[in-house]
Amino acid sequence: MGTGTAVEGTEVERDAMARALDLARRGPAHGPNPRVGCVLLAPAGTAAGELPGRVLGEGWHRGAGTPHAEVAALADARSRGLDVRGATAVVTLEPCDHTGRTGPCSAALLAAGVARVVVAVPDPNPAAVGGADRLRAAGVEVVVGVAEDASRALLGPWLLAVSRGRPHVTLKLATTLDGRVAAADGSSRWITSPEARAHAHALRAEVDALVVGTGTALADDPALTARDADGALAAHQPLRVVVGERDLPVGGRLSGPGGEVLRLRTRDPREALAALHERETRRVLVEGGPTLAAAFLRAGVVDQVHAYVAPVLLGAGRPAVADLGIGTIGDALRLRTREVRPLGPDVLVVADVEEEER
Amino acid sequence: MGTGTAVEGTEVERDAMARALDLARRGPAHGPNPRVGCVLLAPAGTAAGELPGRVLGEGWHRGAGTPHAEVAALADARSRGLDVRGATAVVTLEPCDHTGRTGPCSAALLAAGVARVVVAVPDPNPAAVGGADRLRAAGVEVVVGVAEDASRALLGPWLLAVSRGRPHVTLKLATTLDGRVAAADGSSRWITSPEARAHAHALRAEVDALVVGTGTALADDPALTARDADGALAAHQPLRVVVGERDLPVGGRLSGPGGEVLRLRTRDPREALAALHERETRRVLVEGGPTLAAAFLRAGVVDQVHAYVAPVLLGAGRPAVADLGIGTIGDALRLRTREVRPLGPDVLVVADVEEEER
Ligand SMILES: NC(=O)c1ccc[n+]([C@@H]2O[C@H](COP(=O)([O-])OP(=O)(O)OC[C@H]3O[C@@H](n4cnc5c(N)ncnc54)[C@H](OP(=O)(O)O)[C@@H]3O)[C@@H](O)[C@H]2O)c1
Ligand SMILES: NC(=O)c1ccc[n+]([C@@H]2O[C@H](COP(=O)([O-])OP(=O)(O)OC[C@H]3O[C@@H](n4cnc5c(N)ncnc54)[C@H](OP(=O)(O)O)[C@@H]3O)[C@@H](O)[C@H]2O)c1
Repeated sequence: MGTGTAVEGTEVERDAMARALDLARRGPAHGPNPRVGCVLLAPAGTAAGELPGRVLGEGWHRGAGTPHAEVAALADARSRGLDVRGATAVVTLEPCDHTGRTGPCSAALLAAGVARVVVAVPDPNPAAVGGADRLRAAGVEVVVGVAEDASRALLGPWLLAVSRGRPHVTLKLATTLDGRVAAADGSSRWITSPEARAHAHALRAEVDALVVGTGTALADDPALTARDADGALAAHQPLRVVVGERDLPVGGRLSGPGGEVLRLRTRDPREALAALHERETRRVLVEGGPTLAAAFLRAGVVDQVHAYVAPVLLGAGRPAVADLGIGTIGDALRLRTREVRPLGPDVLVVADVEEEER
Repeated sequence: MGTGTAVEGTEVERDAMARALDLARRGPAHGPNPRVGCVLLAPAGTAAGELPGRVLGEGWHRGAGTPHAEVAALADARSRGLDVRGATAVVTLEPCDHTGRTGPCSAALLAAGVARVVVAVPDPNPAAVGGADRLRAAGVEVVVGVAEDASRALLGPWLLAVSRGRPHVTLKLATTLDGRVAAADGSSRWITSPEARAHAHALRAEVDALVVGTGTALADDPALTARDADGALAAHQPLRVVVGERDLPVGGRLSGPGGEVLRLRTRDPREALAALHERETRRVLVEGGPTLAAAFLRAGVVDQVHAYVAPVLLGAGRPAVADLGIGTIGDALRLRTREVRPLGPDVLVVADVEEEER
């Protein structure tokens, strides 16, 4: 294959990568595994009259316990009766080399006789890495980095979680314009509008765990479920985590329908996150209260803040975030705004906590 | 003139009113007088071959001490050598009937021989009202309410100020995401971004007075000037008002260039506003701090809130608004959002305090 053909081939592969990304998006945002898509392309000049780049099979990962994208794509080709020997596998994440709930994808691609593998993002998971090496050692051509940014963006929190060895943490605040999350008597239902709450529930349905402190569990008796506007439970319910040493009364709303309830009897955010990582929890939403929010911020383990700000003034009550040990404006924790989104009368500010601010 | 012609005439007048509104917008937003525009239309079938609706003169009010819009339009027609007898005056606000810095406009229109006057908004100013009545009594046809909403919107704060007999009050807050306006040590420069500060300075250049409490004057030594990005003073400088009983040290930045400085030795927001109304101050911007903000809110004299919210967390420090006497969420002061505007990394929330919330 001359250089000219290779470049042409690359364009076909880029198109296939865009398609693989679309497929990946069909997978669930939550769960221990990443959203990955795979497209198998026929080798140049196979069966008479065939164009290089004909799609032999497509696959994506549908969630824990189901086949990885590569395996799904191979099965797709097989079910169509197509021969994948000599094919190119275009996949949004480096094929794993790890026998988990399913066998290693690198082995499956080798066994199927794939000749070339085009990858967007190298695998950041220490337990899974090595797929590209195994393939190369067996004589397969491996290209890494095609459409890497777009694929990284899709992998988002999962990528951070596995590379850091702790869940990605979003801190949610629902505050008044003057930064209160509850009135003086502790009441906080509702500060924000139905529109903001609907948005927050949609986010709950995308994460693996909701985390609150015992203070919030005791004060609000929250259900910690992902619900739609009619109150119906979403298909995926995140783990419900309460952090802190106090006992909770039995029979509260946490005993009602929803995700599994996990009590973490610690006050150390890193310890809490380690326990969640152990359970392959990739993305958690810390929903307060102010004490827990401050503890997570001080521990430097908050990746992103979602602040729903309502056009309400209270003048007193619980501040959104308890003491952070910051005494002067120069030491303030400055975030990077990613999104400003009006939601009914409220506004959602999404902002990242950058590494150097921790 | 038959009904058919009257309707046609009305369309021409509506176009003229739109033009008058455009002219009005050229006037300054600040100052004791409203922004008003006036268009003089030739009567139907005057000089041979003339169309009804030919513009004879145009005028707008350029600020205190300069002619009112009607007088300016009459002068414009005169300077073009045009006869306005029998003409229609289309004017965004009812002509005044009051001898202030200039004579009553109603008298000027009568003296010029105008036959019909089309008005958008009736004059809410108790001292100026009566123009329409005087004109009608003299046999002039007067129509009120053409494009009234658009003209009301343009008159905005001025209209509220003169009808209520106190200045329109905008409360400005520059807060962190967790509702702090200063760190624990009192430092607050800068919470918000240059983009937000530029916006705030543009607003300063539109209002008549900036108001702070002695606490802010003592803590921050603010200049309270309207400046552009290079620090140059804007052409219009608002009055600089400090409310509270304590003395201020001499030689602070308030002694530097800028608007006149007014000390109001009171703690009563209504008394402060009465003193400002006495000086024909129509629109004031209360820039804090938290004590003064709470005092104005509790007195029920805040019309609008401009909250510049920065993606910053402090965890401690001065809350945006001091105690409002609100104990539970049901009693929270709920505002009506008018605008959500990203400004660099920050977001500006503009929200109205509605009458029933006071
Ligand atoms: N608007 C909102 O977004 C929102 C969200 C949540 C809560 N709220 C309001 O917040 C209020 C509750 O505030 P809160 O601060 O008590 O709630 P919290 O932060 O949920 O719980 C605080 C408790 O968590 C435990 N904890 C866990 N880790 C800790 C650590 N590192 N440091 C200290 N304590 C730790 C402690 O209890 P142990 O003694 O059990 O260890 C502590 O008392 C309620 O009024 C609720 O309505 C509002
Ligand atoms: N980020 C922002 O937008 C912003 C804006 C302004 C200020 N700040 C910060 O706010 C802090 C100053 O806060 P502050 O609350 O002391 O300032 P303040 O509200 O400007 O001043 C409070 C003082 O005003 C007087 N006052 C006037 N009317 C009053 C009333 N009705 N009730 C009580 N007192 C009244 C009192 O002083 P007398 O004893 O003299 O009567 C009182 O101590 C500073 O750290 C400053 O940096 C931040």
